[in-house]
Order: sequence, then C-alpha cells, then structure tokens
Amino acid sequence: MAVLVSEVGPRDGLQSIHRTMPTAAKIRWIQALAAAGLREIEVGSFVNPKRLPQMADAAEVVAAALRIPGITVLALAPNLLGAQRAAAAGAHKITIPVSASDSHSRANVGKGTDDAIAQIGEIMAWRNGLPEGARPEIEVGVSTAFGCTIEGAVPEDRVIDIAVRLAAQGAESVGLSDGVGYANPAQVKRLFTRLHAELGGKAGGAHLHNTRGQGLANVVAALEVGVSTFDSSQGGIGGCPYSPGATGNIVTEDLVWMLEAMGLDTGIDLAKLAEARAVLAEALPGEALYGHIPDVGTEKGFSYATRGAVPEGTGRATRTERAA
Amino acid sequence: MAVLVSEVGPRDGLQSIHRTMPTAAKIRWIQALAAAGLREIEVGSFVNPKRLPQMADAAEVVAAALRIPGITVLALAPNLLGAQRAAAAGAHKITIPVSASDSHSRANVGKGTDDAIAQIGEIMAWRNGLPEGARPEIEVGVSTAFGCTIEGAVPEDRVIDIAVRLAAQGAESVGLSDGVGYANPAQVKRLFTRLHAELGGKAGGAHLHNTRGQGLANVVAALEVGVSTFDSSQGGIGGCPYSPGATGNIVTEDLVWMLEAMGLDTGIDLAKLAEARAVLAEALPGEALYGHIPDVGTEKGFSYATRGAVPEGTGRATRTERAA
Repeated sequence: MAVLVSEVGPRDGLQSIHRTMPTAAKIRWIQALAAAGLREIEVGSFVNPKRLPQMADAAEVVAAALRIPGITVLALAPNLLGAQRAAAAGAHKITIPVSASDSHSRANVGKGTDDAIAQIGEIMAWRNGLPEGARPEIEVGVSTAFGCTIEGAVPEDRVIDIAVRLAAQGAESVGLSDGVGYANPAQVKRLFTRLHAELGGKAGGAHLHNTRGQGLANVVAALEVGVSTFDSSQGGIGGCPYSPGATGNIVTEDLVWMLEAMGLDTGIDLAKLAEARAVLAEALPGEALYGHIPDVGTEKGFSYATRGAVPEGTGRATRTERAA
Repeated sequence: MAVLVSEVGPRDGLQSIHRTMPTAAKIRWIQALAAAGLREIEVGSFVNPKRLPQMADAAEVVAAALRIPGITVLALAPNLLGAQRAAAAGAHKITIPVSASDSHSRANVGKGTDDAIAQIGEIMAWRNGLPEGARPEIEVGVSTAFGCTIEGAVPEDRVIDIAVRLAAQGAESVGLSDGVGYANPAQVKRLFTRLHAELGGKAGGAHLHNTRGQGLANVVAALEVGVSTFDSSQGGIGGCPYSPGATGNIVTEDLVWMLEAMGLDTGIDLAKLAEARAVLAEALPGEALYGHIPDVGTEKGFSYATRGAVPEGTGRATRTERAA
C-alpha cells in the first residue's frame, strides 16, 4: 500500500519561525526534498505579507518549484484573493484552512466559520470559471478539528457538519487538521471514520502535530481507519503563530521511517532526506530541528517497504547538521 | 476500560545512567509515584552488583516499597539466584528477561536463549516449592522480540515459539519487549495478535522504547489488538546498557495523558506525577528528562477518562524541575 507524505515544512515550518529564509535557500531545500522522493510539497502561503513576511516570496518559490519535474506544488491561501494569487503563480493545488472553532477562525482569517465556509463556494465558482488547464485543485483543511486553544473542545458533530458543508460548497477534498496538538488517537479514529462515511472520496488527509508527543500515535490511529495522506515537516519545525504553545509538526524523517518499517511505501529515501535536512540546517543555523531518526538512524535489518534493505544508521544526520 | 501503566523508571531508568541514585531518594521517588496512582512499580534489579552497582540496594528498596499500601512491588531478576534474592526481599512479582536473540541473550545474561528458557522451568520449580503466601508471581519478558542490535531482525516465528515454550515452562505471564527501540506498529500488531492466540490469558504486556520516536505509536498498535499493560518510565529515562544507542523508555507522563485522553482509565493523576518528577529531578540534577506533557501540560478541555476535567496545563513540570 502507498501512503502520500505531504511535506509542509516550507510553508508551516517557515511561517512559524521568526527569521525569513532567503528565497534561494527555500528553493534549494525544496529541490532537495523533491530529490528525496517527496511528491507533494506545500511551498508557501499566499497570505498578507505584512502579517507573514516569511511568505512574501511565495510566488517566486512556486515558480521555481514548478520547474521540478514530478511533484505537486501546493500552496496555502486563506481567502479568495490568496487563492487567485496562488493560481496566478501556477500552483497545482491550493489548500485553504477553515477553522471549526469560530473564535480561532476570527483570529486566524478575520471571519467566522460560517463566512469561511461560504467563501469556499465563491472560491470554487471562481476556480470553475478558469480556463481548462489553469484550474488548480482546491482542498480544504478543517483546522482546530480536534480542539482549540481558545475554545477548548470542539464538538465532533460540529466538525463533521462543517466538513459536509465544505464538500457541498464544492471543495474537492476536505482534510482534518490538528495544528494545535490536541488530538488523541481515539478521537482521530472517530473523526476520520465519520469523515469517510460522510464524504467518501472527498475525505482528505490528516495534518497532525506532535505537541504532546502523540503525532505518530495519531498517524497509526488514522491508518487504522483508512487515511492515506499525512502532512509532516522536515525537522518537525512549524506550528501555528496564532495558537500559543502550539509548535511542532510531525517530523518527516520519523514518519517516513515508521511507514516504511510498517511495510507502507512512501517512495522517500531516508539518506537523501538527511541531505535535504543538511540544506535546511545550513540555511537556518541554530534553529531547533527535531527528530529521532536523524539522531539514531535506521536500525540493523531495516528494509524499505518495496525497495529492500539499507545499511544500519541510514538517515542519520551528518555531523555538520547535528552541530548546527 | 482500564489500562495498567507499569512504572519501570526505578529499575530500567536508573540502571542505565552512570550515577547511582541514593537509596533514600529512590524510596522518596517510588513513594511519590505511588501517590500519583501508579499501581505497579518495578523498583529494582537483583543482578550482580558488580555489573550494575546502581541496583546494589535492591533488597532495601523492595523492603521500603512493601510498606506502601496498594502497589505491586515488582523486581527484575536475570536468573534463579536473582529470583531467590528478590523473593527473600519480599517482591510481590518478579520479571525475568529472556532474549529472543541468542547473541543478545549471551551478552545480557551469559547464556543462550535455550538455556535461558530451560532456566525458567527451574525457577518455576523453586517458586512452586515455596510456602503458600511466600510465592512471588513470575512473569517473563521476551526481550529483543522486535529485533536486536547485534543480530538485526529476529524472525517472528522464533519469537512466538519462544513465548510458547516459556509458557510451557510455567511462566505465569509472557510479555514482549523492545528494549532497543526497533519495533514498528505493524510488527507490534502482528506479534501481539499471535501472542494472544497462542498464550491466551498468559499473554503479557508490552515493554516499548521510544528510540525512533515510535513509542506511543506502538502503544496505539498494541491497544488495537487488546494489550492492556504497558511499561514506561518517568521522564523517559532508561535503556539497555548492553545495546549501544538504545536509550529511552516511553515517557510515563505522555503515555498517561494519551491513554486518559483516549478514554482509557489509568488511575494516575498528572499533577501528582509532576510532583514525582520533581523528586526525580532533585535527586539527579542535570540528568536529561524527557516528555512533552511536562513541557506543555494538558490542553484546554482535557478530561480524565473517568474523573472529569482539570485546568489547562495540568501535569506541566514546575519551574524548578525544568531548570534542572
């Protein structure tokens, strides 16, 4: 079975740190990620550059990423204007967050959940009016689907109702997102089971964080109920700048190791992923990078799901990177 | 549903660090763990004190732990002599490791796997000859059940065959152990499914490490196939001194949070667990302690499975402990 690991580091990771990575370094990192076998990369966010100056070069990064063969270039947009900018830049796919928590929605995109859902209808109408061949795929991620730092628990019925309404507005895929690291495995199973039952083929992937150490545990829970697309970021960088304390995506390196060890094909090479990590570390010296596989490497006897065995310690970060 | 979290920090944790925790501090820590609701605590190891001087006071620690009402006092013994010493000290339960890897078995206890299995028969014969009321329960943990740092992969048929032979020797419970952090969730599901099928009520718990960040993910996999006893250590300290690079038990704090969030009753209080962690940190200043919950605490809206809601941030370590 194949699993899609969607790398969100160049967007979710880089938007949550204070420094801005130079455009050329972003492009080098994305090229290295693609060389490691990542097939979908979220390369930037078309938000107001005054709010997130780290993402001001999104169009330039998308343009460079489009020159890499074989990858899906994904960009985040918070609204119609952002989606239009992303499409103009050429993004293959646009992901739009809609928060299940009304308070978080207002803090994050300046409008309540109902208005954010309605806007998906406007975005779809605009997208469907584009010439064939220039229509990006539109996916929606329901953020705070597992709880909210402002409101606390978010009722599961509400989350599913929102997902159904988003699909009805025409969204082509609706995923569930835990950008604040609240999700637990039982909840992940319940919500994705209901999402699949209600949305069928429009049920999207899981965006899970590791805030409480539960990231990979939630992946296992999601796999149990048929989820096959997972967001992660190299080195685990990333969080939500509007949710205090909410840092840390799932670490791509650890996720890939776990999936491959389980016999699930990711198409990603851990040794080349370590090379991409060195590019990231060199561009952001001193920035905290996380992950267990970069420390210890693969175990003796590790085999990829479909590509056979590799030497013990594959995927370990280089000394240079570790010193950074 | 109730889950038993078996705290192994005072044994697995303390045997893997270079310093020896003073006996009085060990006892204070064990008392604090019991006060937090831990019902089974592995308090020491009856190994040759020349090999593991950190465990030389095991009899004294067992004696003190016996004075704490309501807990099961567990001790590790590598052989008959150790089991006899543990029983003389009064341990309620003795856990004996038998390695599925012949090379690891020789390195760890000085005899091959077949001899180690045969010795379980001798231990059961001795135990059954003790007067009623003085017979400790005997459990066996099959170590390197998920792979070995010396041999690499260990065939699953071999692991199950060993477990069956151990049960036939009279072991009352046979668990599976990943002291080297090799296990992946698919493997955990396969092996525990087979263990339950072959051993029924004698199938024991899971001893899982977090070496590759996969500890809680493996817990979720084990829960899926009915495992209800999990070893962990406070602060994630612990490893196997004979397996290079193999450090880090599952962190008790993170495990308890995840299980309770999933609706599984552990009986453990996270705020009191943070107090126990402060006792540990004070006794071992500068020692690395791990865990996400001690950093971020519970989320807004967190409720225990059966005991209701607590304030956001419960379980966060104190400033004193974090500075340590």
